[in-house]
Amino acid sequence: MHNEKTLQLLKLVADGVVTPDEAMLSLRNAPFEDLGYAKVDHHRALRQGRAEVIYGEGKTQEQILGIVESLHAAGNDNILITRLNESAAIWLAHRTQLDYRAVARIGIAYPRPVEGVGNIVVATGGTSDIPVAEEAALTAEVLGSNVTRLYDVGVSGIHRLLANTDKLMAARVVIAVAGMEGALASVLGGLTDCPLIAVPTSVGYGASFGGIAALLAMLNSCASGSSVVNIDNGFGAGYMAYMVFASYFAHKL
Amino acid sequence: MHNEKTLQLLKLVADGVVTPDEAMLSLRNAPFEDLGYAKVDHHRALRQGRAEVIYGEGKTQEQILGIVESLHAAGNDNILITRLNESAAIWLAHRTQLDYRAVARIGIAYPRPVEGVGNIVVATGGTSDIPVAEEAALTAEVLGSNVTRLYDVGVSGIHRLLANTDKLMAARVVIAVAGMEGALASVLGGLTDCPLIAVPTSVGYGASFGGIAALLAMLNSCASGSSVVNIDNGFGAGYMAYMVFASYFAHKL
Amino acid sequence: MHNEKTLQLLKLVADGVVTPDEAMLSLRNAPFEDLGYAKVDHHRALRQGRAEVIYGEGKTQEQILGIVESLHAAGNDNILITRLNESAAIWLAHRTQLDYRAVARIGIAYPRPVEGVGNIVVATGGTSDIPVAEEAALTAEVLGSNVTRLYDVGVSGIHRLLANTDKLMAARVVIAVAGMEGALASVLGGLTDCPLIAVPTSVGYGASFGGIAALLAMLNSCASGSSVVNIDNGFGAGYMAYMVFASYFAHKL
Amino acid sequence: MHNEKTLQLLKLVADGVVTPDEAMLSLRNAPFEDLGYAKVDHHRALRQGRAEVIYGEGKTQEQILGIVESLHAAGNDNILITRLNESAAIWLAHRTQLDYRAVARIGIAYPRPVEGVGNIVVATGGTSDIPVAEEAALTAEVLGSNVTRLYDVGVSGIHRLLANTDKLMAARVVIAVAGMEGALASVLGGLTDCPLIAVPTSVGYGASFGGIAALLAMLNSCASGSSVVNIDNGFGAGYMAYMVFASYFAHKL
Amino acid sequence: MHNEKTLQLLKLVADGVVTPDEAMLSLRNAPFEDLGYAKVDHHRALRQGRAEVIYGEGKTQEQILGIVESLHAAGNDNILITRLNESAAIWLAHRTQLDYRAVARIGIAYPRPVEGVGNIVVATGGTSDIPVAEEAALTAEVLGSNVTRLYDVGVSGIHRLLANTDKLMAARVVIAVAGMEGALASVLGGLTDCPLIAVPTSVGYGASFGGIAALLAMLNSCASGSSVVNIDNGFGAGYMAYMVFASYFAHKL
Amino acid sequence: MHNEKTLQLLKLVADGVVTPDEAMLSLRNAPFEDLGYAKVDHHRALRQGRAEVIYGEGKTQEQILGIVESLHAAGNDNILITRLNESAAIWLAHRTQLDYRAVARIGIAYPRPVEGVGNIVVATGGTSDIPVAEEAALTAEVLGSNVTRLYDVGVSGIHRLLANTDKLMAARVVIAVAGMEGALASVLGGLTDCPLIAVPTSVGYGASFGGIAALLAMLNSCASGSSVVNIDNGFGAGYMAYMVFASYFAHKL
Amino acid sequence: MHNEKTLQLLKLVADGVVTPDEAMLSLRNAPFEDLGYAKVDHHRALRQGRAEVIYGEGKTQEQILGIVESLHAAGNDNILITRLNESAAIWLAHRTQLDYRAVARIGIAYPRPVEGVGNIVVATGGTSDIPVAEEAALTAEVLGSNVTRLYDVGVSGIHRLLANTDKLMAARVVIAVAGMEGALASVLGGLTDCPLIAVPTSVGYGASFGGIAALLAMLNSCASGSSVVNIDNGFGAGYMAYMVFASYFAHKL
Amino acid sequence: MHNEKTLQLLKLVADGVVTPDEAMLSLRNAPFEDLGYAKVDHHRALRQGRAEVIYGEGKTQEQILGIVESLHAAGNDNILITRLNESAAIWLAHRTQLDYRAVARIGIAYPRPVEGVGNIVVATGGTSDIPVAEEAALTAEVLGSNVTRLYDVGVSGIHRLLANTDKLMAARVVIAVAGMEGALASVLGGLTDCPLIAVPTSVGYGASFGGIAALLAMLNSCASGSSVVNIDNGFGAGYMAYMVFASYFAHKL
Repeated sequence: MHNEKTLQLLKLVADGVVTPDEAMLSLRNAPFEDLGYAKVDHHRALRQGRAEVIYGEGKTQEQILGIVESLHAAGNDNILITRLNESAAIWLAHRTQLDYRAVARIGIAYPRPVEGVGNIVVATGGTSDIPVAEEAALTAEVLGSNVTRLYDVGVSGIHRLLANTDKLMAARVVIAVAGMEGALASVLGGLTDCPLIAVPTSVGYGASFGGIAALLAMLNSCASGSSVVNIDNGFGAGYMAYMVFASYFAHKL
Repeated sequence: MHNEKTLQLLKLVADGVVTPDEAMLSLRNAPFEDLGYAKVDHHRALRQGRAEVIYGEGKTQEQILGIVESLHAAGNDNILITRLNESAAIWLAHRTQLDYRAVARIGIAYPRPVEGVGNIVVATGGTSDIPVAEEAALTAEVLGSNVTRLYDVGVSGIHRLLANTDKLMAARVVIAVAGMEGALASVLGGLTDCPLIAVPTSVGYGASFGGIAALLAMLNSCASGSSVVNIDNGFGAGYMAYMVFASYFAHKL
Repeated sequence: MHNEKTLQLLKLVADGVVTPDEAMLSLRNAPFEDLGYAKVDHHRALRQGRAEVIYGEGKTQEQILGIVESLHAAGNDNILITRLNESAAIWLAHRTQLDYRAVARIGIAYPRPVEGVGNIVVATGGTSDIPVAEEAALTAEVLGSNVTRLYDVGVSGIHRLLANTDKLMAARVVIAVAGMEGALASVLGGLTDCPLIAVPTSVGYGASFGGIAALLAMLNSCASGSSVVNIDNGFGAGYMAYMVFASYFAHKL
Repeated sequence: MHNEKTLQLLKLVADGVVTPDEAMLSLRNAPFEDLGYAKVDHHRALRQGRAEVIYGEGKTQEQILGIVESLHAAGNDNILITRLNESAAIWLAHRTQLDYRAVARIGIAYPRPVEGVGNIVVATGGTSDIPVAEEAALTAEVLGSNVTRLYDVGVSGIHRLLANTDKLMAARVVIAVAGMEGALASVLGGLTDCPLIAVPTSVGYGASFGGIAALLAMLNSCASGSSVVNIDNGFGAGYMAYMVFASYFAHKL
Repeated sequence: MHNEKTLQLLKLVADGVVTPDEAMLSLRNAPFEDLGYAKVDHHRALRQGRAEVIYGEGKTQEQILGIVESLHAAGNDNILITRLNESAAIWLAHRTQLDYRAVARIGIAYPRPVEGVGNIVVATGGTSDIPVAEEAALTAEVLGSNVTRLYDVGVSGIHRLLANTDKLMAARVVIAVAGMEGALASVLGGLTDCPLIAVPTSVGYGASFGGIAALLAMLNSCASGSSVVNIDNGFGAGYMAYMVFASYFAHKL
Repeated sequence: MHNEKTLQLLKLVADGVVTPDEAMLSLRNAPFEDLGYAKVDHHRALRQGRAEVIYGEGKTQEQILGIVESLHAAGNDNILITRLNESAAIWLAHRTQLDYRAVARIGIAYPRPVEGVGNIVVATGGTSDIPVAEEAALTAEVLGSNVTRLYDVGVSGIHRLLANTDKLMAARVVIAVAGMEGALASVLGGLTDCPLIAVPTSVGYGASFGGIAALLAMLNSCASGSSVVNIDNGFGAGYMAYMVFASYFAHKL
Repeated sequence: MHNEKTLQLLKLVADGVVTPDEAMLSLRNAPFEDLGYAKVDHHRALRQGRAEVIYGEGKTQEQILGIVESLHAAGNDNILITRLNESAAIWLAHRTQLDYRAVARIGIAYPRPVEGVGNIVVATGGTSDIPVAEEAALTAEVLGSNVTRLYDVGVSGIHRLLANTDKLMAARVVIAVAGMEGALASVLGGLTDCPLIAVPTSVGYGASFGGIAALLAMLNSCASGSSVVNIDNGFGAGYMAYMVFASYFAHKL
Repeated sequence: MHNEKTLQLLKLVADGVVTPDEAMLSLRNAPFEDLGYAKVDHHRALRQGRAEVIYGEGKTQEQILGIVESLHAAGNDNILITRLNESAAIWLAHRTQLDYRAVARIGIAYPRPVEGVGNIVVATGGTSDIPVAEEAALTAEVLGSNVTRLYDVGVSGIHRLLANTDKLMAARVVIAVAGMEGALASVLGGLTDCPLIAVPTSVGYGASFGGIAALLAMLNSCASGSSVVNIDNGFGAGYMAYMVFASYFAHKL
């Protein structure tokens, strides 16, 4: 990895500035901080252009705070904390800078304004899918994307969707968030000419099996140019959508 | 069951025309013929207004012929044989009157013209769903329904469907036949104002799991007024659709 | 869609009464109201002859009230709210006209008497299936159907079912509600001569897998003329049953 | 195990007839013959009153013949070979005494007449279930039971079943063999007053999932006094049914 | 059904004592009481030699009491109520005669001593399987069977099982109750010479999937003469075991 | 849809050039050709910038040829036919211009050179995943993308992957193709800074369940910025990857 | 089993010191204590070199105490109690000597220092996997192994893992604990040259299905020399790892 | 990785013998050979003490030959090829040195005698499990282990297993190979005091679901010290068992 730094180091070894053993140590010394319960990845900003995102579920508030401060100390801000419950958010807000969005269950530590690029349409099949959609929308916005929200446009009243064709045609990435039968993804895929990321949600009952029905429908979508993330994984869709833009702006293709 | 006949019989007993033991025997003597390998149900025509349908799979051609002739001898014609493979059809055609439709794999023994009532639209998502759709359409036609076919109108090119809105609005029953993600049912359900019967097909690959994806999608359809039959069960959908009309015409409601 | 209105509009354009741009706007202006969290479909009454039904689960009481009032303002009453829990019902009852049926968890906003047509038999396998059956029965009644209830007639005591053969023979649509092994649907299907809608329920334990056993049994029913809705989806069955009648009365076939 | 023999052996040791080391060897020397590929269990006749049954699938014809002759040499006849395909049967018939029943795919090596006890009714839902039913019936007959066959009495034409109530009432054990929705078991269970063994078959298509639908239905049967064997396991049902009688006759309870 | 009563009735018709219409009514008038929420089956005692058992789960305590009193009024006692939670048991105990067994969650209304026949061994793999085993044991005892309990004899310490070989050899029916990998059934099946009923339990975690692992293992048992009931269905196993004896004693075979 | 054309048409109506009825007809007349068995979507090129792709499986060679010629007549070339078996390819090659790639089972009708943009890395876990990878690579190339192939770099020999870090860092989109445990996607996701599309393959045996293991692993990937397509759906991944570029070049963002 | 003791016993019989009946009794008298609810296996220490481990879940605290004291009375200490919840631990700590480790939910009754042998690396993919990893680590340590912990080294930041290659190369057994996509096992398997035991955890959401995704990935690992235990079964992995050493030290191979 | 070589290289750089750029190249130049369709891992012998094993399924015979010769040229022999079908084996045998074992479907290229260490018992439940067991046994033998075979000792005739207790007690690793209910693993686990590796096989029918029943049973085994490999993965078990010894002998612990 990061070849230039390695080459530089090797040159220092050749010049006698660094001994082979020191170089060996340095090559080993990966840029992460070991907090015991977590190895915070400071390398990721170099490797992927973005700081590590903290998945809040299954971590104590103390652990989350520790990782936040470790990342911030390493020069990061606008640090995303996903699946952050309200009581942990309140606890954190007393100890660090935190912007908390309850519907999306997202916390943004050390928030700073970010200018968005691109144009992502986030659409939902129903009202109950909104929390997952907001997780996707906020993730993309905090990372630096423009987002258009289009909620409750499920296929059983397709004129609600067709009435927004202009918004869909203007999108560069579409995120389709739907539970139950997940048909929204297929219909949207046929109406747009850009990458579509489908997010199945666990909205439904009985044979929706906690989102399996929507997941399978989206994986089998007859619309070309679509792909799928995990059930309720709004974050993953938002991050993927952002990456489509990041890939371009970083590389000036 | 069949109360009038029972009452009649009881009256004959009261009149001394029939002895109790004879009546007992007669009550027992259910109107089916025992062929050994099958008990042909001559009662069904009384009970359900239609002769028994023969499910061809898993029966030898000799068994099928035996059941056909038993039903015909009891006064039935236009006898439906579903899942009838071509070689068995050829064998049967040499031994009885048979009209065989290869795409639908349906045989009609002792065929006679039947005037159709009602208006059923049979729609498919793709070209590969046509055999199942034809099984549905032919079943409904032979039983006595009018059918409009609307094939390859899948949701990823929704204008193909919208261009046929008039046909859909004229339908009294809609049969939606689709594999893969099965979204056709939901979209059709939102565009029509009549009962919709969804038929998942095994068309697809990978995570379609032989039709499970479409089945689940259809069971979870957010469109009101729809129900689902077994995977690839065109016959079941056609029969159910026919029954909607039969129910009315028989009872002059 | 709705071609007559379009043709009318086009004539007004031809007559110069309406400018092309105004017509464009009008064609776009789909008949739904955007509440932000929901796009209330006022179009449905035209399209399907019935106002939108509100699925209560996953919506806040404020959202439900907002949709109710939007629909009522557009001229609808007898508005169905399904999966409405008791506390939300109490809250709503203080703010709008609401008739709440606790067993079926159904609320009827702005209730008005409705004359029923047709004849639907709703049967259950056991006592525990009654809530789902009531959801089906009430849905059909509110929409305008006559319903006969036949509860606890499971197949392990088949004489309880046979003793009601007359009610079954008089039915125009049968709804079979059963959990566990779901055999009721097959037996009823063999005893009746009208469309049968099977509703698997989540009643059972162990290998009933929350209704999967009953769902599979019903999908595989050897009785012709039956179809299936989602697990515990009493509403779907009631709506489908109503549509069988609505289809006829609306169109005077 | 087999305590009497052990006690006898210990007495011989006490009497000095057998040395401790010889006794040790003898205790070890379990009554099976090691053919390399199989350890033929001659002990089972003592332990369970019946010689080992040979499951033919996955064994070469040479292996089957070896086991047959080993069992016969140990004094067994009427040796059951299940899942025996026709070509292996022909090969075996040239080398040993074999009675082969093709429908049930059962071979009986060294057949001898056996007088039956008890009364087992074997019923099937349809014609396609007959091979599995015959495996059950023949197994029970060869082991020494009386069997009454009642084929094609599926629940969608329940009068065919009710017409045979007398046979059902006379049964001491009922075996219900059915595929598709497997409802036969529940209905039979409600009509009889003896143990019922349900055999799901792989007959069906689509959501029957190779017999899973029938298996689940049978496991969830609301009829008391029933239990289930593996899909298509006619042998298991026949053996279990036979054991109900064997248990009594052997022990003169 | 019950042919003698029918023949008698028909004779009365022949004698003019009963009119045909009265007979018709009587034939219809099945021996059950309709409580609205339940159709109590008084016919079952005639049909199956045992009163209906009440499945307590999903019924209110008022409904249970109603069914108990209806059955008792019809001449039944020793009425089994399964899956009866403690609070409902306390409520019932104040209003009727009830013997409640907390571990098995079984209530016995109007209890009376019953003399047992036969010999059933109920064995468990571990300590956690005891509640299900007790449901089986108590069911069999109340119905009139002798039961030997053999708990915590799982196969990972097989000497605990072998030390009880004498008890197993004396059994006429064995009930094997086990969760996790369910191997107990196979090992017991090889050690005994009587029918074996396997009860998978939901004891376990992870890939036990709530009892599926044990269920599948038991269905695939390589031991002949075994069958399986639903997960945690101790009642079903106890009832089936009792029926093996009842079948004999009732019929004096 | 396609608002400009509609506005134009409305203006013609206003100008009296087109009558309302003609306009009505024209609005209806969707740009697809109905071949009976298929409705060829000539609209898609306008709507999505690409002609329809033909999914070869489940279509006869005559149907495929018909669709190819219909598309070509409408001005398309470089028409992709996926899942095209060899014998159909040979048949087609005699009747139209066809470039067939056997490993990927892709046919390109009326092929013409296309200049690629972007940079897609297609990586596989093993040798057996190559056919799916080639379907992805060829799809992207024919649509107009540059592709770098990196085959057999599975994670159990991770140095093979690390040795190609430079290629990965240069990628603008990565397609990870892997069967068995599908871990390649997670590892690649951590090494790259661009969108990753994961393709599970059906390579494997036993508990790979035809690709389910890889599919689930990929859906649960802990690497941010990845999404998943259907099992073995190389085409879908290639199309999605191409769309990332197409989205940019078409819109000059 | 335990042949030497049997031979000794037989010699005593031969010498007349022990009568055959006494010997019979002794052979039967297996070394377990029957507490009614549990048969405590004192034999296991002889048979497997380790006292029985108590699985705490599904046992009352009284039962656990009873088993602990029975084992201790038989000469065991360092008795492991797994899946012991905190309240039961507190109750036990007042009644016996108990060392409780809350994260791992493990109790050690009658703890004594134990010198470790071998070298086990326990690695986790993330922070949330630590409780399962601790169960594994503590189990191995209490049984007498040396353990190195390596937590939060998931594959999406593979440099964190590569930075610890020296620890991995020094391991004699590796335990890989991971949820979500479970890819850690495959990557570790490729980096080490010793047996690897994979523990899937239930960490994750949506299509992780409570650990199934990780379980399947680990079963399909392309890395040679790995095997898998049940989901969240840290104990099983720790015990298996310990056995690798125990096997050697006990037998001086 | 392989630190010594890196340190050596760095020293050469410090000495000026190697330039930084050459070192960079060398660090990159991982020890694998790229055959296009495969990257042959010559590094593995260093990393894991064993040459790469060739998984034959899904590779052409030409590809297999290419990999064999590449490995042999790098100094390896006794090269294992698993899942090698007979026709490919014959083709290979004409072009390279090959020892083919048909039952296990294993080829050994450039075979040479290898002295075994350790003591592995490979046991099967039945005759049909032998091919999988042979794959395990041969793998372990070729890698350098001693193997004892114990076939057809399934738990339904447990005396066949108990008669071999001495062999089990002498084992250092036990491999339990069983299909159907997979109970062999649990019983063996209780009888031995060494690591146990369980291999579920696809032997069985119906609810064995191609080995899932055995897999789940083995994952849930109540015997401590066992772990599981993929269905039919004899190779994986043999390799894991060998590694237990290799780990010791390589490190002289």
